[in-house]
Amino acid sequence: MAYLGYRAGDADTAWGSFFDPHMAPLPAHVVDALHHGPQADQVLLDFACAADLLDDGYLPTETGYGRLRRGGFAVSVLTDMPGVTPRMWDWWFGWHGSDARRYKLWHPRAHASARWADGGGDGHYVGRTSLVEEYLGSTYTKAAIRFVSPEELGLPAHRLGESVAVCARLGSSELPVDIGWLVHQVRPTAGGSEMRSRFWMGGSEVGVRHGNLFANSMIRPVAARQLPDPRDLMVHCAQEMNHLAGFLPALYARFG
Amino acid sequence: MAYLGYRAGDADTAWGSFFDPHMAPLPAHVVDALHHGPQADQVLLDFACAADLLDDGYLPTETGYGRLRRGGFAVSVLTDMPGVTPRMWDWWFGWHGSDARRYKLWHPRAHASARWADGGGDGHYVGRTSLVEEYLGSTYTKAAIRFVSPEELGLPAHRLGESVAVCARLGSSELPVDIGWLVHQVRPTAGGSEMRSRFWMGGSEVGVRHGNLFANSMIRPVAARQLPDPRDLMVHCAQEMNHLAGFLPALYARFG
Repeated sequence: MAYLGYRAGDADTAWGSFFDPHMAPLPAHVVDALHHGPQADQVLLDFACAADLLDDGYLPTETGYGRLRRGGFAVSVLTDMPGVTPRMWDWWFGWHGSDARRYKLWHPRAHASARWADGGGDGHYVGRTSLVEEYLGSTYTKAAIRFVSPEELGLPAHRLGESVAVCARLGSSELPVDIGWLVHQVRPTAGGSEMRSRFWMGGSEVGVRHGNLFANSMIRPVAARQLPDPRDLMVHCAQEMNHLAGFLPALYARFG
Repeated sequence: MAYLGYRAGDADTAWGSFFDPHMAPLPAHVVDALHHGPQADQVLLDFACAADLLDDGYLPTETGYGRLRRGGFAVSVLTDMPGVTPRMWDWWFGWHGSDARRYKLWHPRAHASARWADGGGDGHYVGRTSLVEEYLGSTYTKAAIRFVSPEELGLPAHRLGESVAVCARLGSSELPVDIGWLVHQVRPTAGGSEMRSRFWMGGSEVGVRHGNLFANSMIRPVAARQLPDPRDLMVHCAQEMNHLAGFLPALYARFG
């Protein structure tokens, strides 16, 4: 198990001064969603309709979670980010994954380690797999995050200065099992940008990598017991996105 | 089951006018911790490192809770107490345990009864066992709180006017089983003092009194199902400490 936070020497990098162990309280709309608790699947975005994120305006549940009819659950988180541009997030996803000391900037109370499965360095993320160790609530997880082209989820590629959609298949780094999908759509607003995160976990999104239908039917009941608590995932996402957004413009100005 | 609150005649004591059934809302930092939910064990204080409470400054989680890797959970609560001194708490722990009508002052909505296992009166608490009946959340518990010398947990004895650490082994008053430990460290601040409470419950902290390793391995799975919900313990502790701190200076001035 890797350690949380910075220890002696960890801050001796060009970006070390950006590490801030203090995290702000959750935004009020996230607290409202926690109070609400699980919601109707009909107000949650279906994975097959991920492209609806490209529509103007807002979807019925921008922040919240709920169990899905056919098993598993969905989580949504809206993060308002004054002064942040979609381009900065595109840069961040290509920059942070090669060094745990960068990854820890993002969530100082939960992120323990990160490296690329290909062992490579910075610059891009689509088509690569980020191997991370982090807590979701009190549960330590070793995840493989395989970033895919937005087209794979029906979202067209972005053009510079416009929205960015970060899309990934989520799975285990210890077993050849995937358990979900994520989209972080970042679009410009008057004062900066907003991130609309979506997770679809468990149920029909569980699959054995390079496996077949039979393997899937065996693994799904097992994987269902390994899923994070949706409330912990919503809290974690809201915390890390709000935290990083607070200094992403300064970080990007220096290293972007 | 003993009753909550004061009934006819219960207030006819020298301290009866201090009974106040109205409790203030939780402080904002406790509400934030509830929203956060379970946290990484690595940001929680390990029982073996309880002496870290003596360091200046604050630990990574002054208020919050989480599951521990080897089973069980930890809870932290910070209580700011203007006008209160560590000495007042030292006095309180020696004073309240001999009469349920004193114990009820502390948490009027959850404390039902208290007596010393030795049947004795006021004056001191280290080395004695307080038998209490109280609610944690909706769960009625009959607890044996065996106060120990802080040295037993690696914290040196306090000197007058300085910090006080109230330490205890927590168990059942009905079965010879202990399930956890607590520390309430009270240290001076500019305007009074602050209490830093820590609970370690379940997992390796479960033990059969005067039992052996075999007995422990039998009882642990059973005890794990008897543990309070960590969120209920956090709320209860924050409520009772804030409530009593509101009139502890006046109570101490009169009876201390």
